[in-house]
Amino acid sequence: METPAALVDLDILAQNIDRMAEYSALHGLSLRPHVKTHKSPRIAAEQLRLGAVGLTCATPRELEVMSDVTSDLLLNYPLLGAPKLARALSLPREVQLTVAVDSMIAVDALAATARIMDRPVRVYVELDLGMHRVGVQSVDDAIALAMRVAEQPPLIFAGITFYPGHIREPVSEQEAKLARLRQDLASALERMERSGVRPSIVSGGSTPLAWRMHEVPGVTEVRPGTYVYNDRTTAQIGACAWEDCAFTVLATVVSTAVPGQAVIDAGCKALGREPVRGVAGEGYAALLDRPEVTVQRMSEEHGILDLTQTSWRPRVGDVVRLVPNHVCIVVHLNDVIHGVRGDVVESRWPVSARGREGALAGDA
Amino acid sequence: METPAALVDLDILAQNIDRMAEYSALHGLSLRPHVKTHKSPRIAAEQLRLGAVGLTCATPRELEVMSDVTSDLLLNYPLLGAPKLARALSLPREVQLTVAVDSMIAVDALAATARIMDRPVRVYVELDLGMHRVGVQSVDDAIALAMRVAEQPPLIFAGITFYPGHIREPVSEQEAKLARLRQDLASALERMERSGVRPSIVSGGSTPLAWRMHEVPGVTEVRPGTYVYNDRTTAQIGACAWEDCAFTVLATVVSTAVPGQAVIDAGCKALGREPVRGVAGEGYAALLDRPEVTVQRMSEEHGILDLTQTSWRPRVGDVVRLVPNHVCIVVHLNDVIHGVRGDVVESRWPVSARGREGALAGDA
Repeated sequence: METPAALVDLDILAQNIDRMAEYSALHGLSLRPHVKTHKSPRIAAEQLRLGAVGLTCATPRELEVMSDVTSDLLLNYPLLGAPKLARALSLPREVQLTVAVDSMIAVDALAATARIMDRPVRVYVELDLGMHRVGVQSVDDAIALAMRVAEQPPLIFAGITFYPGHIREPVSEQEAKLARLRQDLASALERMERSGVRPSIVSGGSTPLAWRMHEVPGVTEVRPGTYVYNDRTTAQIGACAWEDCAFTVLATVVSTAVPGQAVIDAGCKALGREPVRGVAGEGYAALLDRPEVTVQRMSEEHGILDLTQTSWRPRVGDVVRLVPNHVCIVVHLNDVIHGVRGDVVESRWPVSARGREGALAGDA
Repeated sequence: METPAALVDLDILAQNIDRMAEYSALHGLSLRPHVKTHKSPRIAAEQLRLGAVGLTCATPRELEVMSDVTSDLLLNYPLLGAPKLARALSLPREVQLTVAVDSMIAVDALAATARIMDRPVRVYVELDLGMHRVGVQSVDDAIALAMRVAEQPPLIFAGITFYPGHIREPVSEQEAKLARLRQDLASALERMERSGVRPSIVSGGSTPLAWRMHEVPGVTEVRPGTYVYNDRTTAQIGACAWEDCAFTVLATVVSTAVPGQAVIDAGCKALGREPVRGVAGEGYAALLDRPEVTVQRMSEEHGILDLTQTSWRPRVGDVVRLVPNHVCIVVHLNDVIHGVRGDVVESRWPVSARGREGALAGDA
């Protein structure tokens, strides 16, 4: 098999999908997985088969590709710009589309396009509950946005959304931020209800918090993405075990000329350059069967394995499997994923929603 | 135009290609541009039209795609693993293929495959002259490898190669490392000649050192890649001017909800996460027309512009152009490049050599 190549262990993948479906069902949470991690309708279909209510997307391309497998899509991303608006609202009519917003400009643009295209669009108002990325900064702003939505049919105010991406400590150290999150959310819900804009859906969740969202009262829906494959970061913070990492990059040792290191044919064009986050840690990926051996430096097509802390001495031509720090980025670098069971490649599938453009990209 | 999108200013591109062709011709250096930056046969053809002797590649996919536009290809990367060996040596017969090696294992595997496929392959022995990535560590090792090549037809010992990627200081501060490079190369050449394995080609070069390779006696060939597009790092170290940056990412401001920042729809899936290197500097990209405004944080689809050092206040929906830190990575994230002149999109071309697989990927 030619390297570098993206492998997914099919047994671990099935377990990961299963486990999240069970968790969500047990706690009465609607599971709406984020497809950014796998970008594959095949895996999305499996998530839906096991009970996901719909899917979460970040780009028009993801919406288009996923409209093949569900009629319930959330774009949990501000929808701005005429081309993107037209594209998202041109999804098949049977698709119930929900869009997250955090500005009057976005609401008004969405309303105008929805009117022209005569298409109902459900809207979530996005709240910043600590991530400081997007999301309105006050409950007053949330109420004002919700009212603006409600008064502009065919928009429908459907709920609120937040992304607790600022909570990525090890699971045992999340309590303080989680307490604050509970408090802020409860206060927002109470005040919105009093103002007559009660959100019927409260959408939250992330993989680092995946197993704790039932501890946040009010949340009705969760949107984890990474959990299907997992990665080094997810394992290090304790939101999965090392054995739950389904995704690896297969690479070949191409040089051992420089002492103390071995060079593999997976550099940052194959592994991404994502730091370890949430815990102290170095390197960009670790060997699946020797997690103490990590990729410490990278060029575009070279990854440098640090051998100074191991007695393992690979030979040129040896093949290794690496667990990357952040799997979503690595999937995005690949066109094709190879499904393996043990050492056997059983299937291959395209990363269908990877690109930005539609059919056009293939024509270019 | 939908964002994020990759734009290339066609006038600047033409100037950059022209300037390097002139420099190489002036100093009698063979120009063999690295295609990793553009991955496009269209741009490679223009480099060849202006005098490039052939092309440099890092992957089998790059070799295959570029065999459409030249019959002189260098794989400046260790060729290991049966699938890659078979693929590289299956290039059209009229292609003169050269491969860089730094191990006996690689030489012997290449020789075995070349014999089976009855195909001559030219070989460069790779020397480590300070980068400490790949390359033999001593002149004795270089001589031994060259002899091993020479005694195994249809391999042909054609020369040596090195990559001075460790020299990425600002141009004015390169002198000490450059002096060391001159000395090490002269010593290697003298000793190889005495041993009867005189390299007829000495291949070096990189964009940070692009305009100084004539100051290293013995070098006959240069392999810059980044210079076609340039980027923030290249400009910051002074190997190009800011006005020479041909490549930008077009992005839309999607949120200004959080004070002190504006969020654009280009995150690390559109910009990469490459640090500034060679000089002090922060951020992952800078605005083309306001280089003091940089992307300071990123999620997969979010880039956070820091507004604390500027009086500029963008509105949601505004469109901006960003110069990324490391353009080669950003090209690799795109399927299509848009050629612009002023504000007009004149052409679009695919990043043909981006993927790993051949026609197979399209079928998957």
